[in-house]
Amino acid sequence: MSLAFCEHGLNRDDHARANPERLADLRASPLARLLAMEGLSPVLGADNGLTWGELGEVAEVVFLGLDGDAPLFAAVPEAGDTRPAYQQRPAWDALSLLPARDLAIYGGARSLVDWHARHRFCANCGAPTQIAKGGWQRNCTSCSAQHFPRTDPVAIMLVEHDGDLLLGRGLNFPERRYSALAGFVEPGEGVEQAVAREVLEEVGVSVTQVSYVASQPWPFPSQLMLGCHGMARGRELTIDETEIAEARWFTRAEVATAMDRGVPDEDRPFLPPPPTAIARHLLNWWLERG
Amino acid sequence: MSLAFCEHGLNRDDHARANPERLADLRASPLARLLAMEGLSPVLGADNGLTWGELGEVAEVVFLGLDGDAPLFAAVPEAGDTRPAYQQRPAWDALSLLPARDLAIYGGARSLVDWHARHRFCANCGAPTQIAKGGWQRNCTSCSAQHFPRTDPVAIMLVEHDGDLLLGRGLNFPERRYSALAGFVEPGEGVEQAVAREVLEEVGVSVTQVSYVASQPWPFPSQLMLGCHGMARGRELTIDETEIAEARWFTRAEVATAMDRGVPDEDRPFLPPPPTAIARHLLNWWLERG
Repeated sequence: MSLAFCEHGLNRDDHARANPERLADLRASPLARLLAMEGLSPVLGADNGLTWGELGEVAEVVFLGLDGDAPLFAAVPEAGDTRPAYQQRPAWDALSLLPARDLAIYGGARSLVDWHARHRFCANCGAPTQIAKGGWQRNCTSCSAQHFPRTDPVAIMLVEHDGDLLLGRGLNFPERRYSALAGFVEPGEGVEQAVAREVLEEVGVSVTQVSYVASQPWPFPSQLMLGCHGMARGRELTIDETEIAEARWFTRAEVATAMDRGVPDEDRPFLPPPPTAIARHLLNWWLERG
Repeated sequence: MSLAFCEHGLNRDDHARANPERLADLRASPLARLLAMEGLSPVLGADNGLTWGELGEVAEVVFLGLDGDAPLFAAVPEAGDTRPAYQQRPAWDALSLLPARDLAIYGGARSLVDWHARHRFCANCGAPTQIAKGGWQRNCTSCSAQHFPRTDPVAIMLVEHDGDLLLGRGLNFPERRYSALAGFVEPGEGVEQAVAREVLEEVGVSVTQVSYVASQPWPFPSQLMLGCHGMARGRELTIDETEIAEARWFTRAEVATAMDRGVPDEDRPFLPPPPTAIARHLLNWWLERG
């Protein structure tokens, strides 16, 4: 059971970020490579892997890390991606084709360059900001505020009752696709409180015994998914239709059939989340746990 | 073993945020109360609890949630807090005086109003932003970008080897204070990868078997602390002096003595983190685990 977007295998060499001479050497290295992207999408090679080009004279680049001795970079695009997440679902499925390591490199790069493209001004004073620290920071040109790439923690949870599992169909999900409920962790709460609050808000179910299972980044645009499990105190659902389209309880057998690769889509009780989603991992974890 | 900043016990009533009429009713309620703050510090009452005042005509307020039927608000101050975290250490200790629930209410409020005060402009285009959704969002007045309060996930970890524990003294820590190593989770990694990377960067130790222990928010300015435990593959330390001042291995007996309330400070092998810090909780967890 592997988690997507996690294992890039690069040496981030964080000291280089604060060392302009070393950064310049890395950029000038004959081994330096630039991630090929069209906008924020990867340009895939014949083997469905990432492709890499010459670094050239790109103005704003992010130093991703060292692949062996080769410094890897990604360029900040003209514009970031302001589309809502659901419009990107086809991309999520396509990304399942990338080898795991390429997927992780791409995911981290996408989050970073998209953040830069949408943070060219200072939130504190409105003046332009400049890329700094090898692309891991932006500095205000006027008020001296420093800005750092954003990562938003999200609680995502399997909720269980009497051996059944609660799954939901998000607004704008494709027909028949169900997944784990999820929501952003807010200021003033821990992961465990966020799980309980989100489930109560979305389906009116009180949750207890929340435990952490696994985490992975999610680069649309830059979430840290914190996968959890909790026990429901009851099974009556009061759906908040402003947050999700549907939610229901599935038996273990139904979840197993839905997740069985040998079963044709039309015979699955629901369509599971894609392999790149931590929800898929959580469902596998839950089935294997027995 | 309680975690600080977690249990505010408020009903966040998130539907009210998107409902201007309901928000107006809440503001106009005779039960509405405004958190008393001087800048970003709480104004404590005689019992060391928070104090509350009339809502009045404050322009930018954040709806914190309902305390029973009473809507609680906090006002956005003129300026946020741009001081580095270490300059606020005296405040952390003082906050240990607040009752747990008040501490949690204050922490969430502090993170939110500080975020507003430092995000009055649009990072995407530089135009002014306006508070929205009861203080849980800001909208750009020009490019229509939406901005949400920021929460930065941080991995904080107890690293163990042969029954001993690795603790560090941060740059600017008071003399003799040691705590768990910690660092921001970056784009392109999960919590477990962040733990391994940070420990390798800060002290040159390779870590395996990373497991999650607990989480809590930390409102200086707005972190989500993800407390973990990991096993070191070796005990030789190569300190990165740009990141921490010192690090060393402590025996279980030393940790127990340091954490024993009956021991005078001068007899402790090190001064432990304050009760409001998750590191303190992790150390208690580790001692009780045996």
